[in-house]
Amino acid sequence: MIAGTIRDLLDQAGITVNGSKPWDIHVYDDQWYKRVWKEKSLGFGESYMEGLWDCQRIDHMVCRLFKSDLVAQVRGSITYQMQFLAGILFNLQSRMRSRIVAERHYDLGNDLYFSFLDPYLQYSCAYFDDTDDLNEAQQKKLNLIAKKLALKPSDTLMDIGSGWGGLARFMAEKQGCEVTGVNISKEQLKHSRELCRGLPVKFFDQDYRTVKGKYDKIVSVGMFEHVGQKNYRDYMNAVDSCLKDDGIFMLQTIGCNESKKTCDPWITKYIFPNGMLPSISQVASSAEGLLNIQHLENLGPHYDRTLMAWHSNFQKAWPELYRKNKKYDQRFKRMWEFYLQSCAGGFRAGINQLWQIVMTKHLPERKSL
Amino acid sequence: MIAGTIRDLLDQAGITVNGSKPWDIHVYDDQWYKRVWKEKSLGFGESYMEGLWDCQRIDHMVCRLFKSDLVAQVRGSITYQMQFLAGILFNLQSRMRSRIVAERHYDLGNDLYFSFLDPYLQYSCAYFDDTDDLNEAQQKKLNLIAKKLALKPSDTLMDIGSGWGGLARFMAEKQGCEVTGVNISKEQLKHSRELCRGLPVKFFDQDYRTVKGKYDKIVSVGMFEHVGQKNYRDYMNAVDSCLKDDGIFMLQTIGCNESKKTCDPWITKYIFPNGMLPSISQVASSAEGLLNIQHLENLGPHYDRTLMAWHSNFQKAWPELYRKNKKYDQRFKRMWEFYLQSCAGGFRAGINQLWQIVMTKHLPERKSL
Repeated sequence: MIAGTIRDLLDQAGITVNGSKPWDIHVYDDQWYKRVWKEKSLGFGESYMEGLWDCQRIDHMVCRLFKSDLVAQVRGSITYQMQFLAGILFNLQSRMRSRIVAERHYDLGNDLYFSFLDPYLQYSCAYFDDTDDLNEAQQKKLNLIAKKLALKPSDTLMDIGSGWGGLARFMAEKQGCEVTGVNISKEQLKHSRELCRGLPVKFFDQDYRTVKGKYDKIVSVGMFEHVGQKNYRDYMNAVDSCLKDDGIFMLQTIGCNESKKTCDPWITKYIFPNGMLPSISQVASSAEGLLNIQHLENLGPHYDRTLMAWHSNFQKAWPELYRKNKKYDQRFKRMWEFYLQSCAGGFRAGINQLWQIVMTKHLPERKSL
Repeated sequence: MIAGTIRDLLDQAGITVNGSKPWDIHVYDDQWYKRVWKEKSLGFGESYMEGLWDCQRIDHMVCRLFKSDLVAQVRGSITYQMQFLAGILFNLQSRMRSRIVAERHYDLGNDLYFSFLDPYLQYSCAYFDDTDDLNEAQQKKLNLIAKKLALKPSDTLMDIGSGWGGLARFMAEKQGCEVTGVNISKEQLKHSRELCRGLPVKFFDQDYRTVKGKYDKIVSVGMFEHVGQKNYRDYMNAVDSCLKDDGIFMLQTIGCNESKKTCDPWITKYIFPNGMLPSISQVASSAEGLLNIQHLENLGPHYDRTLMAWHSNFQKAWPELYRKNKKYDQRFKRMWEFYLQSCAGGFRAGINQLWQIVMTKHLPERKSL
């Protein structure tokens, strides 16, 4: 009975179990239905890692799930059946998770990330403006950020959550700025210092709450997702205290259409422990009285393309990764491909957004961006 | 003692009573100090209307008040003295006003508005993009809106709060769209129908809560300021219900840096009865689950220039207005010049913002705006 119900629900999204379309699901074990019924989104992802089911195009399948009429039905219905799918689709539950995962995202090793990222090691949304090439699109993203920050060679720039140092290097090399990167990942910091050797760039092993100094410009790309709603105000206070009166701050973050306090349980467990996606309302209210939003743009569709480019690079790099490093097994490969493709599908369906948000303390007279 | 305190406070903003700078205040009657002490912002404006004080450049003076260090002091202090200035500057009080004014803004007569507006009768912020000319800047604003809505000749467009019909005419004439205007001002509707004769434009005497139909695009310029916080959700519901699934909505509204539920008492009494300025957080949360913000831009500095251009036109037009229409007396002139210049000063100081906000239901793949 459970199997039939799940098949019927998937059918409403145009997904046929054991069908022949690229987005159809192939179920290898009938235990799968009970597992997904009981564990919802978490079981859906974990059972993929374990090889209980397959799908040629997880991105298309996930996009269909999100875009199907089920969304409206789930909202209007209170039946258990629909609540089950709501659990997969929207993570309506607000419970605290009791187990913290051992595998932490940024400890996985540079070889993994460097196998699919661009030369500037941008682990964030690219800007596919008249290009299909990831490397070019990441440079266009960096140039777009430089433009939005109105960067001048005399500017001092703080990068909160500086990753592997690629943005700092780009802004020092191409824009002539003096850059200060702040990060808490020792592995990333080590690589950043190497990458920026000889440039006017410094990196500090520091939590954003402890930053000091005054900067002309502040940027933070793909880091706000780790801050958590309870700390949004502290984050804005930190930015405000370090930004000069006529300075500009640009925040790039993945966002959520609705104000929530939880994240998808599978993503939380396997990909981003303690991750939380903000809504515009949450960002805006946390900045009230400190920083004004001058410009906001949604580049969500570009994250779909970025994730698919990463996925393609990852698949190409896999044989060598697998040969060289024993910790990357088949389960890991399936975890990673489920992550990249399902997130791409989410952006494609418009469930998640990617915002670049420009803020200032005062209101400088300047032209439309 | 009160006079001394007020003079000291103004002094902190660089404003000297009976000084020689354009932004200095000339007080003609010592009763003024008590009046302003007691009635705060309301008394400040009313006493100007009555000719108790003058100022060559009200815009500069108001901007100085807002930008002075007083802002920080008022926030940190709990003394009565500071609360008084907070009343002028921030309207911290949240009380309901008991008297509704007789003079309503849009009943004042077309001759007044047409004396200072551009040929498209745009009573909203212009876009001074490489121009100093109001008429050109209003056409640039209309073109910017057309671009943000991605208007095509085949599009049906609904204009919520269609004013005197200038936007409808522009979009029908220049973009080839079929336009439906919605308005509750009979005087504006009458003029709109005249202005758009022979074009594919219809106007309806309708409240936004009763709109029907499905449109490719929806626009609303300078109307959300009249909606009121309690009705923001109804407004978004109305837009959502009339927008096609792949449609685009653009909202242009004056905004406030902080979430409030009141407006300046003088502005409320004399200029915009029942007006209320939203924060981004309020706009975003009222749209959650219905419409996603795709793009937001602050054109605040352009409203400063728009208001100053209106003020200049108004001063030029005044002698004829005064000669032709007995209801416009000196008190009215002073009310209007205080309104236009003090609002310009508020935008210049960054106290108010002007947002163009593009929203969609789904997430169409499209380029950065």
